[in-house]
Amino acid sequence: MEQTPFNSWADVAPRLVAVAAGRDAADTVIRKGQWVNVHTREVLPDHDIAIAEGRIAYVGPDASHCVGPDTEIIEANGRFMIPGLCDGHMHIESGMLTPAEFARAVIPHGTTSMFTDPHEIANVLGLEGVRMMHDEALMQPVNIFTQMPSCAPSAPGLETTGFEIGPDDVAEAMNWPGIIGLGEMMNFPGVVNGSQQMLAEIAATQTAGKTVGGHYASPDLGPAFHAYAAGGPADDHEGTCEADAIARVRQGMRSMMRLGSAWYDVETQITAVTKKGLDPRNFILCTDDCHSGTLVNDGHMNRVVRHAIACGCDPVIALQMATINTATHFGLERDLGSITPGRRADVILTSDLSTLPIEHVIARGKTVALNGAITVECPHYYWPDQSRQTVNLGRARTANDFAIQAPTGAQSVSASVIGVVENQAPTKALTCQLPVREGLVETDELPSETDVCQIALVERHRATGATTNGFVSGFGYSGKMAMASTVAHDSHHMIVVGTCRENMALAANRLGEVGGGVTVFQDSQEIALVELPIAGLMSDSPATEVAAKAQAMVDAMERCGCTLNNAYMQHSLLALVVIPELRISDLGLVDVTTFELTDVIKGQS
Amino acid sequence: MEQTPFNSWADVAPRLVAVAAGRDAADTVIRKGQWVNVHTREVLPDHDIAIAEGRIAYVGPDASHCVGPDTEIIEANGRFMIPGLCDGHMHIESGMLTPAEFARAVIPHGTTSMFTDPHEIANVLGLEGVRMMHDEALMQPVNIFTQMPSCAPSAPGLETTGFEIGPDDVAEAMNWPGIIGLGEMMNFPGVVNGSQQMLAEIAATQTAGKTVGGHYASPDLGPAFHAYAAGGPADDHEGTCEADAIARVRQGMRSMMRLGSAWYDVETQITAVTKKGLDPRNFILCTDDCHSGTLVNDGHMNRVVRHAIACGCDPVIALQMATINTATHFGLERDLGSITPGRRADVILTSDLSTLPIEHVIARGKTVALNGAITVECPHYYWPDQSRQTVNLGRARTANDFAIQAPTGAQSVSASVIGVVENQAPTKALTCQLPVREGLVETDELPSETDVCQIALVERHRATGATTNGFVSGFGYSGKMAMASTVAHDSHHMIVVGTCRENMALAANRLGEVGGGVTVFQDSQEIALVELPIAGLMSDSPATEVAAKAQAMVDAMERCGCTLNNAYMQHSLLALVVIPELRISDLGLVDVTTFELTDVIKGQS
Repeated sequence: MEQTPFNSWADVAPRLVAVAAGRDAADTVIRKGQWVNVHTREVLPDHDIAIAEGRIAYVGPDASHCVGPDTEIIEANGRFMIPGLCDGHMHIESGMLTPAEFARAVIPHGTTSMFTDPHEIANVLGLEGVRMMHDEALMQPVNIFTQMPSCAPSAPGLETTGFEIGPDDVAEAMNWPGIIGLGEMMNFPGVVNGSQQMLAEIAATQTAGKTVGGHYASPDLGPAFHAYAAGGPADDHEGTCEADAIARVRQGMRSMMRLGSAWYDVETQITAVTKKGLDPRNFILCTDDCHSGTLVNDGHMNRVVRHAIACGCDPVIALQMATINTATHFGLERDLGSITPGRRADVILTSDLSTLPIEHVIARGKTVALNGAITVECPHYYWPDQSRQTVNLGRARTANDFAIQAPTGAQSVSASVIGVVENQAPTKALTCQLPVREGLVETDELPSETDVCQIALVERHRATGATTNGFVSGFGYSGKMAMASTVAHDSHHMIVVGTCRENMALAANRLGEVGGGVTVFQDSQEIALVELPIAGLMSDSPATEVAAKAQAMVDAMERCGCTLNNAYMQHSLLALVVIPELRISDLGLVDVTTFELTDVIKGQS
Repeated sequence: MEQTPFNSWADVAPRLVAVAAGRDAADTVIRKGQWVNVHTREVLPDHDIAIAEGRIAYVGPDASHCVGPDTEIIEANGRFMIPGLCDGHMHIESGMLTPAEFARAVIPHGTTSMFTDPHEIANVLGLEGVRMMHDEALMQPVNIFTQMPSCAPSAPGLETTGFEIGPDDVAEAMNWPGIIGLGEMMNFPGVVNGSQQMLAEIAATQTAGKTVGGHYASPDLGPAFHAYAAGGPADDHEGTCEADAIARVRQGMRSMMRLGSAWYDVETQITAVTKKGLDPRNFILCTDDCHSGTLVNDGHMNRVVRHAIACGCDPVIALQMATINTATHFGLERDLGSITPGRRADVILTSDLSTLPIEHVIARGKTVALNGAITVECPHYYWPDQSRQTVNLGRARTANDFAIQAPTGAQSVSASVIGVVENQAPTKALTCQLPVREGLVETDELPSETDVCQIALVERHRATGATTNGFVSGFGYSGKMAMASTVAHDSHHMIVVGTCRENMALAANRLGEVGGGVTVFQDSQEIALVELPIAGLMSDSPATEVAAKAQAMVDAMERCGCTLNNAYMQHSLLALVVIPELRISDLGLVDVTTFELTDVIKGQS
C-alpha cells in the first residue's frame, strides 16, 4: 500500500535537466497545444510539453530534442493545455464517498489537486480517523492534501463528539507527510475572544510553516472580523457578497469563493474582480461540499470554473483562481498549479476555454481520464474494523425511547419546536401548542397545516444508550414514517425524524445494524437505504451507486410528504449547534442564539 | 547582543486579537492615512492602523477602540501609508559596508526588508564569514534575510578562494534562523550540465522549503535556458531585455529587475508589464549591487520604485513589485510585504505616490527614520580577529615580485593583454608587442596610445606569497603609479594594477598593513585609501565616510590618468574568471572563452 508522497522536484531534478537539455529522452511529450500560462496570464499557441518522472521537464516551442524511441507522444492538435484543477477547500465526506471513490468521481472532471478537511470523521474517530483519510488520500493518483481539522467538537460544552481535537493533535499531525495546514477555524467566536486552545492550534500550524484555514460565518465586518483576521486564519470561504470578498482580501486573507452542491457564493462575490477590478491573485475557487449526485451529473471544479466564466470572469483569470492562486496559497507554487518545469505534470487538454470540456486528463505525467472516463486505479485503503463499527447504540431502541413525557396532569403543552426554513441553513425557534395523550406529548393527530413531528438525537459514539427528544417543523411528513441518518453535522450522532415512534425505533436500529447511513421507513417498512459503513459517513462504493441510492432516499422522503428543497441536507444539519436558532444535541435542545441548553416543554395547560 | 529573530505572529497573536477586538490598547496608532493595499491593488483613504508588539493588529476605518492612555499616535494627515520596501536580491558587500552600516544608510530611504547574498565574504571566510554577516543582519531593527551563497569558488579549478562552499555547508546553513534560501546559482553551466554539486545544493534548499536564487547570465533562451529552469532556480535577475523577463516568468520563475549603481535593467524589461500587459505578480524589483555613493546620494529601493514609475509603471503595481511580490516569493507573505493584520509593522508615510518622498519610516512598529534622518541604532556585531586579519600576504612584496621575465634573448615579446572595455563587464583578449629591457618585459616607455600597464594578482588568503603577473590595457594610466584592491571579484585576492613595479609593491604592502581596502599610489606616495578592514571587503564606518573616501579614490585614479566610467568597478572585476574573455587569477591568466589557463607571453622576436 503506497503511502509515500510523490517524488519531489529535488529527487528528479537531474533527470529533468537532462531531458530539457536534450541529453535524455522524456517519458511523454504533448505536442502542439496552446499553452495556458497562469504565471503571465497568456495563451501561447504551438507549444510542446516534455514530461519525465511525473514532472514537467520542458515547455517550449519544440520538444523534438526530448523525444526518444520510448517516448509516448500525445497530440494536443491545437487544443488548450491547462493546469489540472485545484479545489482550494472541500470536505470529501460531503460526497458520502471515501477519498478513493471521491477521486475516481472527480478525476474525469479534471480535478487533480484537492485541499480537504476531514472534519466529519474527526468528530467520529478523532485523530485516528483523520489519519485514515490522510493515508487513503496519499495512495491516490492525484494530489489530495489534508487540512487538519481544528474544531471537534464544533461547540464545546453543547455536544459530545466521538473524539476531540486539541492543540497537541494539531502539532502531531503537522508532521504527517500529507498535511498542508489547519482545517477551517470554525470557532470564530473563540478566536475573537482569544481562546487559548484555538490560538494554540493556529500557532502550531504557523510554526510548522503551514496554512491556517478560516471560517468566519458572520456578516459583521466590524471589530470582531478584524480580531479574527488578527488571529491568523489565512483564508475564508464563508463570504456571501462582494463586500465580504473585498474585506477579506484587503485584510491579507484569501477569499475562497465556493460553488458547492448547495452553496452559490461565486456569482455574488466574483464581481470584486470582474466589476471592481481588484487584483485577482487572492481569489480562489472551491466547492466546500459536493454531493455524489453533483459529481455524477454536473462535475466538480470544472463546474466551478465554467460558472465563474459564465459570471463574466476572463477564462484565464478564472483558471488562475483554480490553479496557481490555490497553489501559491498553500505554499505549493513550485510544486503544482501551472505547466512549468519542475511541477507535477498535471495537465488537461480541452478544446474550448469557456465551456471547458475535459477531454484528456494527465496527472503526474500519466493519463488518468479520457473523455469523461477514468483510466486509472484509485486504490482503496484497508479500512480497519474500528472505522466500520461506529454506530454504537449500546442497546436497541424501542418506541418508548422516543416518548416525550408531559408534566403530570397536563392536557396540552407549549413546546419548543425547531423550525426548518427552506433554502436556509439557520432554523427558527418556534413554540407550538401540542396535545397530551396518556401522559405523552403527541404529534400524530395534529391538523396537517401544523406540520410538527418528532426529532431525536440517538447517541452512537460511546454506547450510552441515550436518546434526546424534541420537535421539528417544516418537513411536511404525513402518515407513519421515520427517517434516520448517522450523517448528523457536526457531532455525527444519529438524527431521527418521524411521525411515529415505532418507525423511529425501526429506523434507528436499522442503522445500528448496517453500520450507519441513511434510512427511510414508512408503515414499518424500509423504503430507502444508503449504507455508509465507514464512520457512518462514507461509502466505498462508486459515486454512481451512492448517488443513485441517495436519489432513491430523496424520492422516499417525498413519498412521505416532504417537498422541501435539499430536504436531506436540512435533516443532517439539525444537530449543527453552531448555527442559529434552535438545534438538538446529545445534551438536549440547544438555543443557538444564547449558546445554552433549553427545555423542550415550556409550559402546560 | 540580540540575535533572536523577531517575535512571530504566533507569539503575539493573543495580544493582536485583543487589540483588534478593543479589549487591549495598541502600542501605536497611525491615524487617517491613505492605505495602499498591495493585496487588492487599491488606495483607500481615511484608514487607521493599530500596532502592537511590532506587528499590525488592525487596519480599518477607525482605530479609536484600540487607543489607550499610553498609545502613541502618529498622524498620517492624509498621506499615503505604503508597506516598507523590500530589496529582492542584493549584496551588502557591494556598498563596502557592514550589514549594520548598510542598514543605517538605507533605512531612511524606506528599505525595511533585504534579501542579501553574502557571496563575497563567503569567498574570503567561508561558512564562518556567512554566519557573521547573518548574525549582524539579525541584530538590525529592519529585516535582513540571508541567502546562503551557492558558488564559492565561482569557477572551480580556475581560482583558489579563501574557503569553499559545498552542499554540506548549504544544508547546515538552512537551519540558521535568518537563512531564507540559496544565493544566486551563478554556476549556470554547472546546472545545465547536471553538476552533482550544484544540484545537491539546490536540493538541500528545496528540501528545507526555501527559495533557490537564480543567475542565468546568458542571452541563450534555447535548451540551455530550459535546462536551467528545470534545475530549480526560482528567480533570475540577469535578464536585460523584455524577452528575458517574459521567458523567465513564463517558465514559472520570477523576474527580478534590477537598478543597481551600475545595472540598468528595469527600463528594458518592465515593458513586459507596462506594454505587454502580463500579470505583474511575478515581477520583482531589486538593486543587486549598490555602492555607498549611490546610497548616500541617490537612494536605495525608493530609487528603484521611482524609476519603475518613471518608466510608466502604475505606482501601486511598482510598489507591489517591491513589497508583496517579494514577500510571496520568499514564502513570507504572511509575515511582511503588506499593511495587514499579523504582519511586521513596516510602514512608510509619503505624500506623493510617484516621487515617493520617504517622510516617516516605521519598522516593526518603531519609528526608524524621519525625513531622511535615522532615529534608531543599528547595532554592530563584534567582528572577531579572523574577520579583520584576512590580508595574509605571507611576506612583503618587492618590485621584483612584479617582474615579468622575457624568454632568454628576446628583444620584444608578443603578450596577452586584458583589454578593458568601457561600460561593459566583458573584457577583450588582446595581443600586444611589448619591449624587453634587461630580460624583463617593460611597459613604462610605450607610446601613450598603447595604454598597456601591468596587472598582478597577489595571493592573500593562504599566505602563499605568490604573485601572478600579466598585462592590462584601457585604464589610461601614465606616470609612476599603482592601485591595489582587496575587493577582487569573486575570489577576492588582491588586484594590483600599475605602471611601476615599486609603486605596485608599495600599494600591495600597504593593504597588507591596513588589513585590506583600496589604495592608490603615485610617485611612491599614497594619494587615496579606502580602509576595508572586515574581510578586506567592508568598513564598519558610516556610509557617508566610506562614500567620501571612495570618491577620493576615484579622483585619485583620475589624477593618474584614468577617465574610464566606473573605473574602480572595472579594476575590481579583473579577476572575475566567469565573464569572458580574459581575466587573471591566482593560478594564472585565464581564457574565459575556453575556461583554460593561458600564457602571458605568446611569442618573441
